[in-house]
Amino acid sequence: MYGSIEPVARLVEALSRLPGVGPKSAQRLAFFLLRQPPEFSQNLAEAIVEMRSTVVFCTTCFHITAESPCQICQDSRRDRTLLCVVEEPLDVLAFERTMRFRGLYHVLHGALSPIEGVGPDDLKIGPLLARLRAGEVREVILATNPNVEGDTTSQYLSQLLRPFEVRVTQIARGLPVGGDLEYADEVTLAQAMENRREM
Amino acid sequence: MYGSIEPVARLVEALSRLPGVGPKSAQRLAFFLLRQPPEFSQNLAEAIVEMRSTVVFCTTCFHITAESPCQICQDSRRDRTLLCVVEEPLDVLAFERTMRFRGLYHVLHGALSPIEGVGPDDLKIGPLLARLRAGEVREVILATNPNVEGDTTSQYLSQLLRPFEVRVTQIARGLPVGGDLEYADEVTLAQAMENRREM
Repeated sequence: MYGSIEPVARLVEALSRLPGVGPKSAQRLAFFLLRQPPEFSQNLAEAIVEMRSTVVFCTTCFHITAESPCQICQDSRRDRTLLCVVEEPLDVLAFERTMRFRGLYHVLHGALSPIEGVGPDDLKIGPLLARLRAGEVREVILATNPNVEGDTTSQYLSQLLRPFEVRVTQIARGLPVGGDLEYADEVTLAQAMENRREM
Repeated sequence: MYGSIEPVARLVEALSRLPGVGPKSAQRLAFFLLRQPPEFSQNLAEAIVEMRSTVVFCTTCFHITAESPCQICQDSRRDRTLLCVVEEPLDVLAFERTMRFRGLYHVLHGALSPIEGVGPDDLKIGPLLARLRAGEVREVILATNPNVEGDTTSQYLSQLLRPFEVRVTQIARGLPVGGDLEYADEVTLAQAMENRREM
């Protein structure tokens, strides 16, 4: 297809294996790289190799870390009876930025999605159950995304966790701080009303 | 933001400089790479560096090539009086697959787009005029994409080429072979009617 331009074909092939990158956008990315100075490609390639060789997933909580177990799992000041279950490593970072949660995390690496073919075996659910069997955890806080996949995952987990002697909670739904009541969607507004509390 | 996870931040930053890749999708790509075997990242990084170091743009026609001038520009059997102007290297490959065109090409590397901030100086228009001044070309065939940007570019070029003693043509618009008349859009159908020819 590319005549003598094998390297372009090879890169297009490699890029189109990335999620959300089809053959067309892979070609566009390849030509974009050709138009940039060589240092741009060099930097990108180094960043890829460096990350893949220095970053691993924590074997306990599956958060990203330079060495396993991660700093959070190793931190003795953390409350080991509290376990917050999230979909992605980025969600851990989001909670850590709040500096309010002092328990541990468990990263599922996705959410159940029959449409995208993601089933329970594709998520880190087995290791979650193993952590609960170890017996230290008293409360599991489900903090999946507030969308169909996240809710399905939380529903599934809450059923699965019933045999365990743990409290299972879910983070609150309500109006976001700084949000405008007028522009809130009905579901959020209904849940905010339902979850009202004494002042 | 990433705590001790500098390499992830570096890769996300590098990825989000690619066109069409925002910070969110850059993060998703980074985590995707972490979930693949290390060879996957290694292969991708090598493909990037290999392509950028072995592939260049032809200094005459700006097509992709292993060495400049490219094989097409060097080919003495090609008709040097015919010049086909296209937007992207992929368009050259598309025409070459037809094995019908025996002239030369000129790759603009884009199309005029005020919305995306692409002006005449961003395209290889200066080198195109220089080729025409050399005097060998008798016909310029405008083969930009049949959309707003492509049409604008062709319009602009046809005006710009008026002072030159060259025939300026545009590739035909009409019904694609294998297409269904019933499902053709009105503009294509109208142009197919207008460009009808004797059988």
